[in-house]
Amino acid sequence: MSAATTPSPTAVVRERERLARVALNRLGEPGDLRLTSLTRELGAERLHEMLLGEGETNGLQTDVAARLAALDPARELEQAARLGLRFVVPGDAEWPVQLESLATAAPLHERGGVPVGLWVRGPLRLDELARSVAVVGSRAATTYGDGVAAEIAAAVGRSGRPVVSGGAFGIDVAAHRGAVTAGAPTVAVLACGADRVYPAAHRELIEHLARTGAVVSEAAPGCAPLRIRFLARNRIIAALAAGTVVVEAARRSGALNTAGWATRLHRPLMGVPGPVTSAGSAGVHEQIRAGAAALVTCGADVLELVGGAGEALVERPPVPGTARDALSHRLRQVLDAVPAASAAGADSIARVAGLGVLEVGSSLLRLQAAGMVLDTPAGWRLTELARA
Amino acid sequence: MSAATTPSPTAVVRERERLARVALNRLGEPGDLRLTSLTRELGAERLHEMLLGEGETNGLQTDVAARLAALDPARELEQAARLGLRFVVPGDAEWPVQLESLATAAPLHERGGVPVGLWVRGPLRLDELARSVAVVGSRAATTYGDGVAAEIAAAVGRSGRPVVSGGAFGIDVAAHRGAVTAGAPTVAVLACGADRVYPAAHRELIEHLARTGAVVSEAAPGCAPLRIRFLARNRIIAALAAGTVVVEAARRSGALNTAGWATRLHRPLMGVPGPVTSAGSAGVHEQIRAGAAALVTCGADVLELVGGAGEALVERPPVPGTARDALSHRLRQVLDAVPAASAAGADSIARVAGLGVLEVGSSLLRLQAAGMVLDTPAGWRLTELARA
Repeated sequence: MSAATTPSPTAVVRERERLARVALNRLGEPGDLRLTSLTRELGAERLHEMLLGEGETNGLQTDVAARLAALDPARELEQAARLGLRFVVPGDAEWPVQLESLATAAPLHERGGVPVGLWVRGPLRLDELARSVAVVGSRAATTYGDGVAAEIAAAVGRSGRPVVSGGAFGIDVAAHRGAVTAGAPTVAVLACGADRVYPAAHRELIEHLARTGAVVSEAAPGCAPLRIRFLARNRIIAALAAGTVVVEAARRSGALNTAGWATRLHRPLMGVPGPVTSAGSAGVHEQIRAGAAALVTCGADVLELVGGAGEALVERPPVPGTARDALSHRLRQVLDAVPAASAAGADSIARVAGLGVLEVGSSLLRLQAAGMVLDTPAGWRLTELARA
Repeated sequence: MSAATTPSPTAVVRERERLARVALNRLGEPGDLRLTSLTRELGAERLHEMLLGEGETNGLQTDVAARLAALDPARELEQAARLGLRFVVPGDAEWPVQLESLATAAPLHERGGVPVGLWVRGPLRLDELARSVAVVGSRAATTYGDGVAAEIAAAVGRSGRPVVSGGAFGIDVAAHRGAVTAGAPTVAVLACGADRVYPAAHRELIEHLARTGAVVSEAAPGCAPLRIRFLARNRIIAALAAGTVVVEAARRSGALNTAGWATRLHRPLMGVPGPVTSAGSAGVHEQIRAGAAALVTCGADVLELVGGAGEALVERPPVPGTARDALSHRLRQVLDAVPAASAAGADSIARVAGLGVLEVGSSLLRLQAAGMVLDTPAGWRLTELARA
């Protein structure tokens, strides 16, 4: 797996395996269940050979065989390398092993399975994404959603975890930018080829990620962002990350497709609530309500749920307490019976409190010791401390 | 329990019981655990007698005994009646039996237990609250919270369920008004006496409820709204209603106290989410996140959770037994190539079927989805369904 000056037999086999995977990757659509599962079952080289051979024995398969025969995987790899792309396959040191869980996850829209390989552009190694968090959501995000996505992504980034998203308008780009602002690595998984930029408006951001993080795609270089590729792409986002946060999603948002994959993969799925009057939060609320997603409100919530060693105790904003909270039930009862703006005698306080005057007398002395009441000539009064 | 023209011995006992309860109610604070549990254990009359008697034998109890002896419960009832108040006690036809669950619910802040009785002003009978829904929340509500509270309360009211709340500023009053707007009965449970109005700004609303619904309190007539009484009052709100909705609540909001009671009583607790940037939603989010409250976004969500008969899921019709007959010719061809008693790889199945391995791969996935084959580590196997 590490580069050897003289190719060993294993390295040669590995290279043949990689070339077979390049061909199979180019042959099928991302997430084509037949290809991913047969590759897993038979191995890439064997499947490649069988599909090539079928051209000669079975007329119906000519199309596949002919397309395979016409491919030049070595040249594809060379061309990709010139664009700064590498093709990462199972067995590579960089291969993100968490993708293997896709082998047993139930498919969705006939897409599924462990990808044959992933095209990568950028310095970040994919095996560094095991602790990453996906932050996704609606393209048609609100400023509220954008703000929360950026804040959560920044908090995730500051904790040392890369942020994975889809490079799309709305929540995705807000998440990438939040991570960039925090100086944290962030990865865009695209539905088009990793050499391309989609949407075009995000050229600057995506090129920035290619320089500092990674741009990843299961689709071969040059591929256009077809709808079916978004569905396959979403499974890669969910499978790469340790957990997925959906910030805003309308009822039929594509972000819920990513959410579905997180659930299929038994990874933490988290949802950020919003106003119930906002259509952009309806899909998230549905996921939380159904018990599919955990409600999260901030980066600390997310980090707690994606868990891991050394992160058990993320600091939460403290809940303010008052001197009053430290009192016993009975002392509070007496304190409450002291008028807010005037003085009163113990007997009057006892009547208001509904307690015996003896007991109230001893309670008032204890409250005085605690600095909560003052004994004045006009009667008992609350102190500033008691009013706080 | 029904009014008799000539008082029967039972009716007389019942009246003595009611008078004892009036005295005990006046003696202690609402939700005083000692009083509620001793009343339940000994009966109101016996406890009343014992406490009166203790005055003579136990110097420390003089205060209690003296206060009890000074009370005139019959006169209290008369005076209350002149204010339009009745005192509803266990055994009355109107007694809301759902309050009995307070007997076993864990106390909170040393408050708890079944109230000795409830003071009621208004035409609505308390036994009509078994299906009611409590809608509560912050006094410092946002316009968002107010709007959602009113909408949920209106939807609950339109469904024929009374709305219970606390008559306070913010969410409470929005909920009452929502129910009133929907022409639905609504009940305010107050921390002060049911003859009083708190807060004073809600005089008009509370008098409206007293004419059309009910104003309820565990505190005796004339009692002031002390903080401790709010805590006891909250348990009555939660215990009267079939479920409690918290619309907005900051981290330390009193509404969370009512929420805690709903949980203690094993009643559905529901929370309305809001922007994570709103402090007024933080307490609700915490409850949802902790799994204590279910997320609800509208009246329909609430009604689904408070449930009732006739709302169970309709069972799906079973799949017809002739599963194999429903298959296409090609799928049957592949199915027939799967060994009857062992497992086989897709390539072997393809050879037997005389078909291409890609096509067999996709057919196997479709057969798997139909429950006819299983993908095992040893290869593809027939299921029971395929063998049938």
